Amino acid sequence: MQTLDYKRSHTCGELRALHASKTVSLSGWVHKRRDLGAIIFIDLRDRYGITQLVFNPDQDVALHKLASTLRSEYVISISGTVIEREVKNSKMETGDIEIQISDLQILSEAKTPPFLINEDEPGIQEALKLKYRFLDLRRHSLQQNFILRHKAMLAARNYMDRQHFLEITTPILGKSTPEGARDYLVPSRIYPGSFYALPQSPQIFKQLLMVGGMDRYFQFATCFRDEDLRSDRQPEFMQIDIEMSFGKREDIMKTAEGVCKTIFSSCKNIELPESFPVMTHLDAMEFYGTDRPDLRFDMRLIRVDSIAERSEFAVFKDQLKQDGCVKAMCVKGGSEFSRKEIDKLTAFVSDFGLRGLGWMKCGPDGLNANIAKFFSPELLSELQAAVDAKDGDLVLFAAAQESIVNQALDHLRRHIAKEQKLIEENALCFTWVVDFPLFAWDKNENRITSEHHPFTTPHPEDLAHLKTDPLKVRSLAYDLVLNGYEIAGGSQRIHDSDLQHQIFDLLQLSQNDIEEKFGFFVDALQYGTPPHLGIAFGFDRIMMIVCETDNIRDVIAFPKTIKASDLMSEAPSKVAPSQLSDLAIKTLE
Amino acid sequence: MQTLDYKRSHTCGELRALHASKTVSLSGWVHKRRDLGAIIFIDLRDRYGITQLVFNPDQDVALHKLASTLRSEYVISISGTVIEREVKNSKMETGDIEIQISDLQILSEAKTPPFLINEDEPGIQEALKLKYRFLDLRRHSLQQNFILRHKAMLAARNYMDRQHFLEITTPILGKSTPEGARDYLVPSRIYPGSFYALPQSPQIFKQLLMVGGMDRYFQFATCFRDEDLRSDRQPEFMQIDIEMSFGKREDIMKTAEGVCKTIFSSCKNIELPESFPVMTHLDAMEFYGTDRPDLRFDMRLIRVDSIAERSEFAVFKDQLKQDGCVKAMCVKGGSEFSRKEIDKLTAFVSDFGLRGLGWMKCGPDGLNANIAKFFSPELLSELQAAVDAKDGDLVLFAAAQESIVNQALDHLRRHIAKEQKLIEENALCFTWVVDFPLFAWDKNENRITSEHHPFTTPHPEDLAHLKTDPLKVRSLAYDLVLNGYEIAGGSQRIHDSDLQHQIFDLLQLSQNDIEEKFGFFVDALQYGTPPHLGIAFGFDRIMMIVCETDNIRDVIAFPKTIKASDLMSEAPSKVAPSQLSDLAIKTLE
Repeated sequence: MQTLDYKRSHTCGELRALHASKTVSLSGWVHKRRDLGAIIFIDLRDRYGITQLVFNPDQDVALHKLASTLRSEYVISISGTVIEREVKNSKMETGDIEIQISDLQILSEAKTPPFLINEDEPGIQEALKLKYRFLDLRRHSLQQNFILRHKAMLAARNYMDRQHFLEITTPILGKSTPEGARDYLVPSRIYPGSFYALPQSPQIFKQLLMVGGMDRYFQFATCFRDEDLRSDRQPEFMQIDIEMSFGKREDIMKTAEGVCKTIFSSCKNIELPESFPVMTHLDAMEFYGTDRPDLRFDMRLIRVDSIAERSEFAVFKDQLKQDGCVKAMCVKGGSEFSRKEIDKLTAFVSDFGLRGLGWMKCGPDGLNANIAKFFSPELLSELQAAVDAKDGDLVLFAAAQESIVNQALDHLRRHIAKEQKLIEENALCFTWVVDFPLFAWDKNENRITSEHHPFTTPHPEDLAHLKTDPLKVRSLAYDLVLNGYEIAGGSQRIHDSDLQHQIFDLLQLSQNDIEEKFGFFVDALQYGTPPHLGIAFGFDRIMMIVCETDNIRDVIAFPKTIKASDLMSEAPSKVAPSQLSDLAIKTLE
Repeated sequence: MQTLDYKRSHTCGELRALHASKTVSLSGWVHKRRDLGAIIFIDLRDRYGITQLVFNPDQDVALHKLASTLRSEYVISISGTVIEREVKNSKMETGDIEIQISDLQILSEAKTPPFLINEDEPGIQEALKLKYRFLDLRRHSLQQNFILRHKAMLAARNYMDRQHFLEITTPILGKSTPEGARDYLVPSRIYPGSFYALPQSPQIFKQLLMVGGMDRYFQFATCFRDEDLRSDRQPEFMQIDIEMSFGKREDIMKTAEGVCKTIFSSCKNIELPESFPVMTHLDAMEFYGTDRPDLRFDMRLIRVDSIAERSEFAVFKDQLKQDGCVKAMCVKGGSEFSRKEIDKLTAFVSDFGLRGLGWMKCGPDGLNANIAKFFSPELLSELQAAVDAKDGDLVLFAAAQESIVNQALDHLRRHIAKEQKLIEENALCFTWVVDFPLFAWDKNENRITSEHHPFTTPHPEDLAHLKTDPLKVRSLAYDLVLNGYEIAGGSQRIHDSDLQHQIFDLLQLSQNDIEEKFGFFVDALQYGTPPHLGIAFGFDRIMMIVCETDNIRDVIAFPKTIKASDLMSEAPSKVAPSQLSDLAIKTLE
């Protein structure tokens, strides 16, 4: 039996040359054992680092013998003297020293792990690592991610506190609403046949907190969506959820910028700019083909409708006649692309519904090759100026319905940037995208629907169009985009009951529909609702960027697979029949 | 339509005489309107306080007219000049000033609320307040509770960070385990017939984080229990969950004391003592009859078996013969109790299975009355000394099986203290209760069971008794008690695989049982588990004490009723048949 007296005097990441000749005690895991001649070296690992232990049989035969029984991942506790190394290891933070051991206790033995706890271990299947997550968590880089995640949460909380926001916890056992994604349901035992729903977001609760006069709220909120997962989604995810009363868009933007600045400053020592650039939704779509433009590289889309119109190129002119558009993109240095490479790009865009790509190359004498022959020399000059093509560039063209052109060129733009390594590593390009459309057209139902949600305020300048041309009405919704990812989104909410009903009317919602969809909430808004607005950050996504990983499972301690299962605990699982009968439900075959 | 330009220069709690003659703008709710002659006074309220506005028709007729339309809970925005009042109101923080209004905007009207937003409003049914929680949240005292809750969470987080604990989020969608209370279940859509369970605590995950080398973990964790609720319980509740590796009981105690100290210091400006007293479980049961003694008053239980044995009182002697015990309690000044009052106490204890109370009164000449006649003068002197009775005191006696005596006298002790107002207001009496028994005897199953859970370490001094007398074995489990409430509990966990199997054997768990009950977890512990230990605070309970309320709903923003329903959103509720068929479940009639 072990004594419980295994206090550490230091951690395994702490000792330096200045500690030489000190007596210390350390505890941790056997990372590696090397037997060099008679001497045994142990790399001892804990969350804080690795320290080298030395067992010399000339000094203590019994200890040396005990050390020879140590295997990978045993947990041990040692005492010893810090010795400055003759040959220092500059790659290790503790590489200036080693410990001459005077006492060794084996605290806990270990079965042979199914994989080595090593960053460079190649080819381990992710499923195996998830099954043994408790071992994978011992990896240095994963541990660093959770240290960063902790730091980010704490720094953001302290920042929000300084801005007088209160963190208020909202319920997990909520009510199912017919809007939005699919809910996770929880059968009620006390009310057989009734169900709670896990929240997709605390949206209604945070607005009610504003109605309740809490003034400024935030929460690191766990949210749930029972959707078929993409690789970067999890069934439960974390939002930094924020709402404030009596503020303007600028106020919430400043708050959100502060959250970003404090996270990057505390986690990465990076000072972000005082404020982030703002782009309208219209411009984002026009110049990048997407509402989440990646601004780490340029390569904008340029509309060349008026030039194409005057060309002889039937493909372009036909599209323009059918209300389509023609956009071009100038790939710097792209004139070296072979015909085969360009064919690959054409194949790439076909996945996004674009039938083909036109192209021209820019030589010392201007644009030529491929579709250049359909353009007069004057038009070619005009085109070259419009797309700012220089000798050695490649100009690509897409002609189709605008939504297809945008989608295809957005993907193509990012694809080429990645392939051509145009993306500056470590760049952090934030941008606000504002003035989203208030409504979208639902082709299936042949009516307008809310782009965001029906409580989003119309842009004050567009109120006059509400009745005449609702699809032209912009909203006071905004997204924050970082490196091409939407990391936050929000809006000014409607606090005026007349305006709210005007919107409901436009959405063709009857009083019954409203009650069914939004229940008490619409009534609650009539008891004195302050102007209020908010935003919600996808915190896991931010942490992926902070931790420089593409795998969301690297920033969640116990993640689920793309099939929403936990391979370690084997959740979900069968339960006892009595559990189901308590809940008055049964499963279908 | 309102303009969105309603920035506030100040809050409603901020202005003082020093701001006199400044132009300011405020926004908030109309708390009260008083028409005094021609002048209209408005109390404007926000989260930060109340400021008095003055509308004088002599200054602006139109504004005055608009002000006359204001009703309770309208949301308005004003501009005006700060005026030092001639007659100051010392009861209001802003009572030195008022605002002479130059501009008024009605931002949002309000239906007549179902109750006034007023602390002193009597007799409003709790159900009505819960239905209109968004209005009740406007009450000053509720808002203060959430400000305190926010402060407590932030202060505790910063404290834990300084101690190098990482906050790590564990899953909400977990696995149902057959141990413990009833789980809330979540049907899986992807795996029909399988279920997730909401966590009753993150116990297994936090131990796995230790196995994973995270060293020090904490989390403000939402936990769930589908139990029939008591008035101070909620189906979802918050724990401050803590676990550390390579520590001793003293380390976790110090950490927990630090959490308490930081919460009371940040919320209440109260400096708690450097460390809290420690009492063994044996002493707690002996002297207070409970493992959560309320130490705000004395009145200990005193065992008088040996004196009772020598008396002529058959009732006592019979109980002693049947392995019962006799305990006494001295009520200071209690000799004034009438026979009727003592009869009421006897009725009170009968609820706890105690058939009667013996009593003696202490006069200037010592103990007398009631059962004194059964005791010789020498025994009476011995008894008086044992219970430290003085002239004017009442001594109460209970004789029965020890568990009944303890339960009855524990309740009686607290009952009398409350009735006699022996409890010092604002007293905060913390105590650790340590060395809980490792096992309990399960009469139904005729075998020993774990008192805490089977991963709790036995007390090292008692290891020898494990096989011979397991019920005598103490554990390294500990509770933190405040004013008679258990506010935290935890234990040193077993990290030694041999010892773990010894415990499983004692609990008569077969390999199959172990796998079924604990699954992968027992296997996980075999891959190099550090010694580790932890504690979990009932955070809602702590906040009840901080906020000085007996109602748990006062410290939870959107609480549920004792029947686990949300009266505001009407959760749980019926859901669409398609939602159930997606999940491959059906409800039973």
